[in-house]
Amino acid sequence: MGLLIRGGDVVTTEGVFRADVYADDDGIIRQVGRDLEPASSSDRVVDAGGQLVLPGAIDPHTHVALPFMGTVSCDDWFDATAAGCVGGTTTIFDFVIGSRGERPLETLEAWMAKAEGKAVSDYAYHMAVIEWNDDVEREIPEVVARGIPSFKAFTAYKGALMLEDEELFKAMRAIAAAGGILTIHAVNGAVLNALAEAFAAEGRLGTDVHHLCQPPESEGEATHRAIRLAGLAGLPLYVVHVTCDAALKEIQEANKRGQEVYCETCIQYLLLDDSLYSLPDFEGAKYVASPPLRKPSDQEALWQGIARRTVHTLGTDHAPFHFETQKVMGKDDFRKIPNGMPGVEERLSLLYTYGVETGRITLPQLVEVCCTAPARIFGIDDRKGAIRPGADADIVLYDPHWEGTFSVKTQRSTTDYNCYEGWKRKGRPTQVFVRGRQVVRDSAFCGEPGFGRHLARKPRRR
Amino acid sequence: MGLLIRGGDVVTTEGVFRADVYADDDGIIRQVGRDLEPASSSDRVVDAGGQLVLPGAIDPHTHVALPFMGTVSCDDWFDATAAGCVGGTTTIFDFVIGSRGERPLETLEAWMAKAEGKAVSDYAYHMAVIEWNDDVEREIPEVVARGIPSFKAFTAYKGALMLEDEELFKAMRAIAAAGGILTIHAVNGAVLNALAEAFAAEGRLGTDVHHLCQPPESEGEATHRAIRLAGLAGLPLYVVHVTCDAALKEIQEANKRGQEVYCETCIQYLLLDDSLYSLPDFEGAKYVASPPLRKPSDQEALWQGIARRTVHTLGTDHAPFHFETQKVMGKDDFRKIPNGMPGVEERLSLLYTYGVETGRITLPQLVEVCCTAPARIFGIDDRKGAIRPGADADIVLYDPHWEGTFSVKTQRSTTDYNCYEGWKRKGRPTQVFVRGRQVVRDSAFCGEPGFGRHLARKPRRR
Amino acid sequence: MGLLIRGGDVVTTEGVFRADVYADDDGIIRQVGRDLEPASSSDRVVDAGGQLVLPGAIDPHTHVALPFMGTVSCDDWFDATAAGCVGGTTTIFDFVIGSRGERPLETLEAWMAKAEGKAVSDYAYHMAVIEWNDDVEREIPEVVARGIPSFKAFTAYKGALMLEDEELFKAMRAIAAAGGILTIHAVNGAVLNALAEAFAAEGRLGTDVHHLCQPPESEGEATHRAIRLAGLAGLPLYVVHVTCDAALKEIQEANKRGQEVYCETCIQYLLLDDSLYSLPDFEGAKYVASPPLRKPSDQEALWQGIARRTVHTLGTDHAPFHFETQKVMGKDDFRKIPNGMPGVEERLSLLYTYGVETGRITLPQLVEVCCTAPARIFGIDDRKGAIRPGADADIVLYDPHWEGTFSVKTQRSTTDYNCYEGWKRKGRPTQVFVRGRQVVRDSAFCGEPGFGRHLARKPRRR
Amino acid sequence: MGLLIRGGDVVTTEGVFRADVYADDDGIIRQVGRDLEPASSSDRVVDAGGQLVLPGAIDPHTHVALPFMGTVSCDDWFDATAAGCVGGTTTIFDFVIGSRGERPLETLEAWMAKAEGKAVSDYAYHMAVIEWNDDVEREIPEVVARGIPSFKAFTAYKGALMLEDEELFKAMRAIAAAGGILTIHAVNGAVLNALAEAFAAEGRLGTDVHHLCQPPESEGEATHRAIRLAGLAGLPLYVVHVTCDAALKEIQEANKRGQEVYCETCIQYLLLDDSLYSLPDFEGAKYVASPPLRKPSDQEALWQGIARRTVHTLGTDHAPFHFETQKVMGKDDFRKIPNGMPGVEERLSLLYTYGVETGRITLPQLVEVCCTAPARIFGIDDRKGAIRPGADADIVLYDPHWEGTFSVKTQRSTTDYNCYEGWKRKGRPTQVFVRGRQVVRDSAFCGEPGFGRHLARKPRRR
Repeated sequence: MGLLIRGGDVVTTEGVFRADVYADDDGIIRQVGRDLEPASSSDRVVDAGGQLVLPGAIDPHTHVALPFMGTVSCDDWFDATAAGCVGGTTTIFDFVIGSRGERPLETLEAWMAKAEGKAVSDYAYHMAVIEWNDDVEREIPEVVARGIPSFKAFTAYKGALMLEDEELFKAMRAIAAAGGILTIHAVNGAVLNALAEAFAAEGRLGTDVHHLCQPPESEGEATHRAIRLAGLAGLPLYVVHVTCDAALKEIQEANKRGQEVYCETCIQYLLLDDSLYSLPDFEGAKYVASPPLRKPSDQEALWQGIARRTVHTLGTDHAPFHFETQKVMGKDDFRKIPNGMPGVEERLSLLYTYGVETGRITLPQLVEVCCTAPARIFGIDDRKGAIRPGADADIVLYDPHWEGTFSVKTQRSTTDYNCYEGWKRKGRPTQVFVRGRQVVRDSAFCGEPGFGRHLARKPRRR
Repeated sequence: MGLLIRGGDVVTTEGVFRADVYADDDGIIRQVGRDLEPASSSDRVVDAGGQLVLPGAIDPHTHVALPFMGTVSCDDWFDATAAGCVGGTTTIFDFVIGSRGERPLETLEAWMAKAEGKAVSDYAYHMAVIEWNDDVEREIPEVVARGIPSFKAFTAYKGALMLEDEELFKAMRAIAAAGGILTIHAVNGAVLNALAEAFAAEGRLGTDVHHLCQPPESEGEATHRAIRLAGLAGLPLYVVHVTCDAALKEIQEANKRGQEVYCETCIQYLLLDDSLYSLPDFEGAKYVASPPLRKPSDQEALWQGIARRTVHTLGTDHAPFHFETQKVMGKDDFRKIPNGMPGVEERLSLLYTYGVETGRITLPQLVEVCCTAPARIFGIDDRKGAIRPGADADIVLYDPHWEGTFSVKTQRSTTDYNCYEGWKRKGRPTQVFVRGRQVVRDSAFCGEPGFGRHLARKPRRR
Repeated sequence: MGLLIRGGDVVTTEGVFRADVYADDDGIIRQVGRDLEPASSSDRVVDAGGQLVLPGAIDPHTHVALPFMGTVSCDDWFDATAAGCVGGTTTIFDFVIGSRGERPLETLEAWMAKAEGKAVSDYAYHMAVIEWNDDVEREIPEVVARGIPSFKAFTAYKGALMLEDEELFKAMRAIAAAGGILTIHAVNGAVLNALAEAFAAEGRLGTDVHHLCQPPESEGEATHRAIRLAGLAGLPLYVVHVTCDAALKEIQEANKRGQEVYCETCIQYLLLDDSLYSLPDFEGAKYVASPPLRKPSDQEALWQGIARRTVHTLGTDHAPFHFETQKVMGKDDFRKIPNGMPGVEERLSLLYTYGVETGRITLPQLVEVCCTAPARIFGIDDRKGAIRPGADADIVLYDPHWEGTFSVKTQRSTTDYNCYEGWKRKGRPTQVFVRGRQVVRDSAFCGEPGFGRHLARKPRRR
Repeated sequence: MGLLIRGGDVVTTEGVFRADVYADDDGIIRQVGRDLEPASSSDRVVDAGGQLVLPGAIDPHTHVALPFMGTVSCDDWFDATAAGCVGGTTTIFDFVIGSRGERPLETLEAWMAKAEGKAVSDYAYHMAVIEWNDDVEREIPEVVARGIPSFKAFTAYKGALMLEDEELFKAMRAIAAAGGILTIHAVNGAVLNALAEAFAAEGRLGTDVHHLCQPPESEGEATHRAIRLAGLAGLPLYVVHVTCDAALKEIQEANKRGQEVYCETCIQYLLLDDSLYSLPDFEGAKYVASPPLRKPSDQEALWQGIARRTVHTLGTDHAPFHFETQKVMGKDDFRKIPNGMPGVEERLSLLYTYGVETGRITLPQLVEVCCTAPARIFGIDDRKGAIRPGADADIVLYDPHWEGTFSVKTQRSTTDYNCYEGWKRKGRPTQVFVRGRQVVRDSAFCGEPGFGRHLARKPRRR
């Protein structure tokens, strides 16, 4: 059964144009054009009149069912991908993060198992390197061979996730040799630990000091360091969740020099600021994530970065924790608050409402940062991130005229709060397809657990 | 009669994919897809198997039949657009440049008349502002209303083309108010004049001092100045023919700050260097253009700029002069050499051969800088610069396997030399279409004078 | 009659140390040391116990009796140098500024005549170049030969003082060839004119728009331009009255590259901000000077520049106009307000009170920017700017314990207002000497008109 | 017995002037002036006619008798200070560097003992922090209390000297709280280890790869990191032995921002380059030091830094090892070559010959970087680094007319080679005094072991 989407305004990074889209039985887009007709009478025809036809969005940064800080992020693979789908995101990149002592392939298999049978849309992985030893070194090419050429390293969370510089640099050289790319969480972990310890020693344990432990300079520093090390290793670098001008500037400088470095920011860093950490009644805990929210001036720099194409992608770092049962673990000590915020469900509508509608960015720029650039950078652009013949029919019909609000009451994610509660929302996905299969109908989820598949990828051109 | 191009590899900024392209009787692309069939038996079917299917390239910077320095650039509208077509360029942006005392609309009409009946492919104009008075101020909105929202200013050639800073700034404010964008030739004219005069006083009048009169710092300076003035005027700026790292860095800095500034370089600045000015027998005159060729390190910076997306477009500044009859005017005084070089015909193949084949840039990046970005920046992206439904069927079939050389013997342009004589060439356009009409067949020109039309454009979103 | 100053704390750029200072009959310092004894019984002995012994300060930037904007700055050479003396400034650099059509040497002679018989302390000149022609070009070496190797150019005030870029660049080359240095007023005059005209057209003619016509970017732009042109001309450059971070950054960048560029700021830019322009009752006119006062963040950048030695000198741009009779000329049109503020009298105490006492800078840094650096940069360090054997006995005894306020009631300058009226003042000069001759006694002026001499200087090492 | 030095040209950072210098029995300068007379008949009178009278130079960076890499640097306290004296250096700052497990005060006492009875001139210490624990934290204020407010940290030599970032940051906060300043060896140790290991794995063990293991980017990175951490800790920072533009730029940027960061380079980085590492016969080992020698373009940047005052001090990192018996330890493996070069003896004459004589810098600039700035930054400017009343009579008579060469045959240091063998030398110290006591007579050493004293210092103003 083919699928014909008729009369919508297709959005690509190149522009917005009226066209029908036809996908075949295999869920592959065959044609994009005017006046397309169904190939057979069994084909389904969907009227997209008055709606935007977007490529299914890609979230380059999620943490599904992640064991972290003594608990597990609360959306499992079904929840997270379902939440993504209703929000217009049909591919997620999740981070495979094991424990010390586990071999990478071992962890990978566990991660594969978690997703299988649950994911309703497609997904890919970044492989975290959290220690350096012969096993890890030997398995890196094997991880690449299994279709995972993108890795992750942390410059913070010593004893858990952090690589020391020497480990990091050796990992970089090995990943470069294997044709990979490295994503990096770049905040100076030493500063974080020392400041958190110092605040604790003074008895300051509330949410209001969370962001003070990771000042912008500590993010700028780690970003610069990672860039220089990657440059020496000959490795393409992708800096995740850039929050501030200090870090963005380092990436812009690297690109000025010609070095291949990408900048991801997340939707919360465009819209929320660090004044939230001073909310009473432990409310600030809802926004405790790392790196922390910053100042309005940083938001402005990031918005301009999207407009001027120096910010390359927009993710969510979706890592939801229940406020009542999980965030509360840090009630008496901010260091114990599970770090993370939900976002996979809200991203696209937030960016549309507060970016496109306000004139800050254009629709093609929305598609660039949410769909096309993540696909290109991470090597799934042969299948995802664009509406064109040969690509998977991951398609979002977005009704730009709908008006409503964001709310925990209407969300699909399992968290018990919404970071944008009551905020105005302009537009929403109405019909969403993954490989031609409908997963959202009239804005209601209708997908099927297990339909999602892992997306194996090739190494980068060396 | 429709047109069906079958079996080629379509290239867009988003990727390369196998697809057929169907255009209707009106020369509008209707469908892009697999397994397209002709709509009627009268449709023409072209086999593109093994070839790249590119959007017709756009040259954002040409000077056709330009009266300049006592002569006229030697390609007229037929020659220039025909040369463009055989080279894969199906739209040119030419600069309307009058004389002092002429009103802009007057000059525009003259320019329109020159092209009409001659151009074989479509074209648009940038309107030069070379003096500032009430007439000019009053007519700027009218020029925009006639579909020309892009302007041009010069910071050099005092007494002829140069605007003094106050004129420039006032022009900027007027253009901004009218919803326009300004393209700028940014070299410090004061330095140029003073140094040329000083060299002349020493009796140094050969081609070898041409580039010494316009050092990179003088280009960097004027670029910075134009950027700052445009910033104060609230005007988008497009810096033409950027040749050197000094100027590129200023644009990159502006983009870091969030200012809307675009960087155009030209193919010659990527491939040729200033050692050519020391060639014996007046050979250096062939490369006398302004700004001049630079150092290999500048070339490298520009290549990296394309790869890292900080150089936005690639033009040619096509302004050909006969060596034997025109360049020779400056035989005894380099200041009298007509400034300019041909390039509209060679650009695409040069960039393919020396950029894509060498791995410096990707095919989508070639399409970005030669096709899509010029269309987007200058407001013809609704029709040009991309292969997609609704766009004009300006299409180039490029055979990437063909091998040959560049030579004056085989070129279409009327100049009596080729700047890349004997250089290896990989690939060439075989069949080229403008709005569905074939203008190049089996690499031979077959277009018709007068088929080309002026492309009226809308003001930019304010 | 020799002079022995006993028991004070001598301040140099190298430190603060207890020492006596002995000057001979000729007013030349002979010895600096402990336990000095008078050479003869006729020697005068002054007790400096508890006081600072400073080199007489140098103001690198004044405008004495300057014909400007239809009036004349109100301190003549007697008033200005007397005001300087009571404030601790014993050498001023005044700008020789003629009218178009006058030859430089002609103007210089007029300037020399104005000072002669009036100045109570020594002085030197910077020669303004306000047009470019054969006379000016020919006389530049002669001006240098008369002991004036420092010149001045303006990038603003078109038709009056401004040099067009080509004139400026030619002047730079000529000054460089003559062994000179150029001081420059760097604000983009084109922007100033255009914005002032635009405000006027809107009927906005109050003091509140004065600073809006010369935004920081317009100062940064002109600074960058002057630096680049000077670099190409091989000329040392000295940027006068830098007001803002935007301009300072350009100078810092030049020094990073190794280019010889100096940064002068003025005391008012450290202490006053642009909110004053919105004062009611035309009060803002008191602060109308060019460039205008800026933001507190700019003040902060300048303070840090002194502390980190990237700001080299501190002047005053002393150009006083009566509020009641002169400033009032612009009552209905801010463009007619004579531009300028007094400061030669207050500078040292303001810097001491708000810089040294607050811990922002050190005493040696005060001496560096107010005394030693101006002397070194402009070539009078063989005689002025330091307390050492062989130097002129220009000496200030500064009582750091005295407390009072600044006020028009107690000032020596002839203006009818004081920009720092009622501000707290810590310390003041008590005894001041010029070449050994006392000009201030117990904080009261006691100098003699005509004692001051012109300081002829040598060209810079080339 | 007093000392009267007559008729020389005294050099200070403020200028060069003819003056006599008189020091009392206690070796304290009492007077500087013209026509000084001996106070008593027992006073010694020295004729300095035709000679420069310089403050005894200060070397802010030496390693005397340092146990390192399995051996000990070959000059002991007598040799090193004697070599310093004949070269015009009368104060050295040596680094107290213990072993892990030793308490700082313990190490300090050992260091004190080594110098006592041996040093012929005065000295001070920087205290190295090579690990972080409660003992170290507790003793930092005590070290300051003993007159040592300057510390040292290393970002390289893991397992021996290197502090991990968290240790470094905690140390920085503790030092800041104690009123100290931190000197830092800033090269990325992780890169160094990984690259050295990689070269070794390829069997590349010669001197030619030494510098490849510490590329300029790795120095720039560590410099940036140290600057950012110090900024967050509120700590003044002093970067030792800066070798390259990449690191210098980071310091210049910090100063632009207003952060207190100082830049030391060493004489060898101004004059020698990395081509020496490719000398045959293991000759390259003579120049194996860390960081390594760099490119001529880096030398140029450092020279310009001195001229533009963005390089603050010039040291030597004097750490001599015998070529035949010590350097040879790394004959088969460059990693085992004891790192270090001599220089304390040659510095002043090298800088005079290749800096002042060539016109690159001025004599006052020589005094600034070699004498006055080290004294000011490290808090001995009340006694050292300047010729002025109250300061110690550490005085060098330098004959600028003498001509000769540098050679191992004529040197005082105990190494068996001279890095500048056969290089032309212009000028040399003839008579040298420490606190009024002569230590060099007619260019021959005549000092006495044990005359030198430790210079206790105060904490910095907080």
